[in-house]
Amino acid sequence: MSNTPRPKVVIIGGGFGGMAAAKKLRRVDVDVTLVDRRNFHLFQPLLYQVATGALSPANIAAPLRWIFRKQQNCDVVLGEVAGFDLDQKRVRLTDQELPYDILIVAAGSGTSYFGHDDWPALAPGLKTVEDATETRRRIFSAFEAAEREDDPDRRRAWLTFVLVGAGPTGVELAGALCEIARHSLKHDFRRINPAEARVLLIEAGPRVLPAFPEDLSAKAEQSLRRLGVTVRTGVMVTGIDEQGVDVRSGDQDERIEAHTVLWSAGVRAAPLADRLASAAGLEQDRGGRLAVEPDLTLPGRPEVLVIGDMASFKHDGPKPLPGVAPVAIEQGRHAAAQVKRFLRGEPLAPFKYRDPGSIATIGRAAAVAEVGRLRFSGFFAWLMWLFIHVMKITGFRNRLLVLMQWGWSYFTYDRSARLITGEDATDGQ
Amino acid sequence: MSNTPRPKVVIIGGGFGGMAAAKKLRRVDVDVTLVDRRNFHLFQPLLYQVATGALSPANIAAPLRWIFRKQQNCDVVLGEVAGFDLDQKRVRLTDQELPYDILIVAAGSGTSYFGHDDWPALAPGLKTVEDATETRRRIFSAFEAAEREDDPDRRRAWLTFVLVGAGPTGVELAGALCEIARHSLKHDFRRINPAEARVLLIEAGPRVLPAFPEDLSAKAEQSLRRLGVTVRTGVMVTGIDEQGVDVRSGDQDERIEAHTVLWSAGVRAAPLADRLASAAGLEQDRGGRLAVEPDLTLPGRPEVLVIGDMASFKHDGPKPLPGVAPVAIEQGRHAAAQVKRFLRGEPLAPFKYRDPGSIATIGRAAAVAEVGRLRFSGFFAWLMWLFIHVMKITGFRNRLLVLMQWGWSYFTYDRSARLITGEDATDGQ
Repeated sequence: MSNTPRPKVVIIGGGFGGMAAAKKLRRVDVDVTLVDRRNFHLFQPLLYQVATGALSPANIAAPLRWIFRKQQNCDVVLGEVAGFDLDQKRVRLTDQELPYDILIVAAGSGTSYFGHDDWPALAPGLKTVEDATETRRRIFSAFEAAEREDDPDRRRAWLTFVLVGAGPTGVELAGALCEIARHSLKHDFRRINPAEARVLLIEAGPRVLPAFPEDLSAKAEQSLRRLGVTVRTGVMVTGIDEQGVDVRSGDQDERIEAHTVLWSAGVRAAPLADRLASAAGLEQDRGGRLAVEPDLTLPGRPEVLVIGDMASFKHDGPKPLPGVAPVAIEQGRHAAAQVKRFLRGEPLAPFKYRDPGSIATIGRAAAVAEVGRLRFSGFFAWLMWLFIHVMKITGFRNRLLVLMQWGWSYFTYDRSARLITGEDATDGQ
Repeated sequence: MSNTPRPKVVIIGGGFGGMAAAKKLRRVDVDVTLVDRRNFHLFQPLLYQVATGALSPANIAAPLRWIFRKQQNCDVVLGEVAGFDLDQKRVRLTDQELPYDILIVAAGSGTSYFGHDDWPALAPGLKTVEDATETRRRIFSAFEAAEREDDPDRRRAWLTFVLVGAGPTGVELAGALCEIARHSLKHDFRRINPAEARVLLIEAGPRVLPAFPEDLSAKAEQSLRRLGVTVRTGVMVTGIDEQGVDVRSGDQDERIEAHTVLWSAGVRAAPLADRLASAAGLEQDRGGRLAVEPDLTLPGRPEVLVIGDMASFKHDGPKPLPGVAPVAIEQGRHAAAQVKRFLRGEPLAPFKYRDPGSIATIGRAAAVAEVGRLRFSGFFAWLMWLFIHVMKITGFRNRLLVLMQWGWSYFTYDRSARLITGEDATDGQ
């Protein structure tokens, strides 16, 4: 085999799925090219801790080149995919073309605003490092603006935080925001009392953490209320502007004055999914995802695998697997195994997902978790959450730094990574 | 005194000088208002470590409110100064007015490009967190662009780093850049050899570290050359564009092709100095600084003190004190002492500066230091540098985090805070 060129595997996306696939190909006799727009892998589940000033972006990111520095068969390319030529088996980047024998597409997902093009600027999502530092800027600028404001109504609007969407991210943000208002900023202001801040968690569905079992949702809601979060389920956001949000509950319209609105109500497959769909002549589902075969390949393209948040994989039943890290990682590993089968000329194997369970944290020292039939909540679930997240962070240095900062914050409520940075840092908004 | 309103001290700027003054007024019976555009104090001497991916911005910053949370007589105001009404004793912010009995102006300095208005965009300085993340983006994007470039000349231009100005910042950046090229990125690329990067340190004066004694300058230059830095003294930059720099040495013109140019050749007092000068009807020196009386007050305004980088203070001889942290800190403390004298109706005392010495580091484990008549270089000086800087960082948490990350980097050369972030993160430039 040494004289024939080695098969080329191109992986698009260095998130959980793409990284897992590339790592798993370490000892396989192929040339792996990992393409990403960013030079780092990001541990997205902890972005909310950057957004709330507990961690720095670099603590939850690891340079992709560093991750693969010793994997000689893996070449990292920093680049943007412009399109696909599936018949010629080529990926077009903006400045080069990459031929492949096998293509693994794992470009993840972004925030969806359901067609409201003006909402992203009004209510940032939480998918990128820039989202997190922008959210951080808004949160801490709001307290500053409230301190400068004499009018009680306007002050109240600055101290009102509306979180749209009560999935894990919304719940985690809500808990952290209450902790900031009640503890971290306790002694910091002279005119306002930060503890008067209102944190509203708005969810269109009937309960928080809709992906969790009902009893855990109830527990989470209880914990949130205990922290001081105002939980509003069955409430739809119908409008957002710079002064607040319009919501509807049943046939009741309501206006909430709030300068800080954060969005975690919808995700959509990365725009690359649209290009891949049109190149392959395939349909996408409502979330922009591509339906994949049981073996993770695209219909009619056995050499193209789609994994993670971009793939709509129906396991048993009509609901596709959720867009979470464990699914992406397992699919990434499976994709790597498929590469081996493909090269040996063996038939590909269907992907089987063994759900490791779900876990979400609610403020300090509380969490809810579901592992198989077991359900946990409270402090023990929180310890589980802590352990899982620390172990999964890439790089020993980051694990140590995160653990140290968490330990420190736990006892001091200190959130000293709360820098207001960016262009108009003194703007108030 | 309890029924009369307490005297108001307004301090502009939460850098080394302003922070020192405010802290020193802790037990004085005055109302202190500390105004800053940013919500944090920044430990500027370590900005180059953020720019080179060794530390995160939050590691060298501390929220001003947090610093003063327990100092009840100190109110922190996040705001931008729009002007001064010195006769009415008022500072105008963009959204409010602050009356004062005593005003301490300590707004620091920014980067000076000597009138070249297009240079800031081409060659960022290193004064703010945004400068540092932008520099970091450029440095690591350049290696990425080189990896994608096939043309050897263009590749060479991507791997050429021109640092303009051989003061402590330029010297520190040069050392760190060589370490990155030779060690941190050693295994990261497949096409380029990062060690081929050229680091040019350009200085218009006759030697590096012009503020140090000649023998230490020579030692520093030796260390820099050993690290692989190309030191060019007596060389003036005459032009900068996106492809490189034009320089002149004697009457020899030369062109250096380089995509990354970093500027630390000039500082200028913050623009606020201009407003203060025009309000007070005073002249500024070439660096925009205001000449202050021996007691740090503005001529004719005994209730207005100017300290730190904005002040031109002539000690003995014609040269004003340099714009370094120790001067600002000592002047801040002296300003606080003046406040006490002012309130007691005592005459103000002249400021006396006891130079604690200078220290600059050159890459890992080397530094030069001057303490009184003693001069150190090499490893011992570096340990001194390390100790001083760690001790001076605000906040125990940050001290611990910085020390840990330094320890880690020292043994592993790891620079995993090397995130390419910001708007056009995939742009190459």
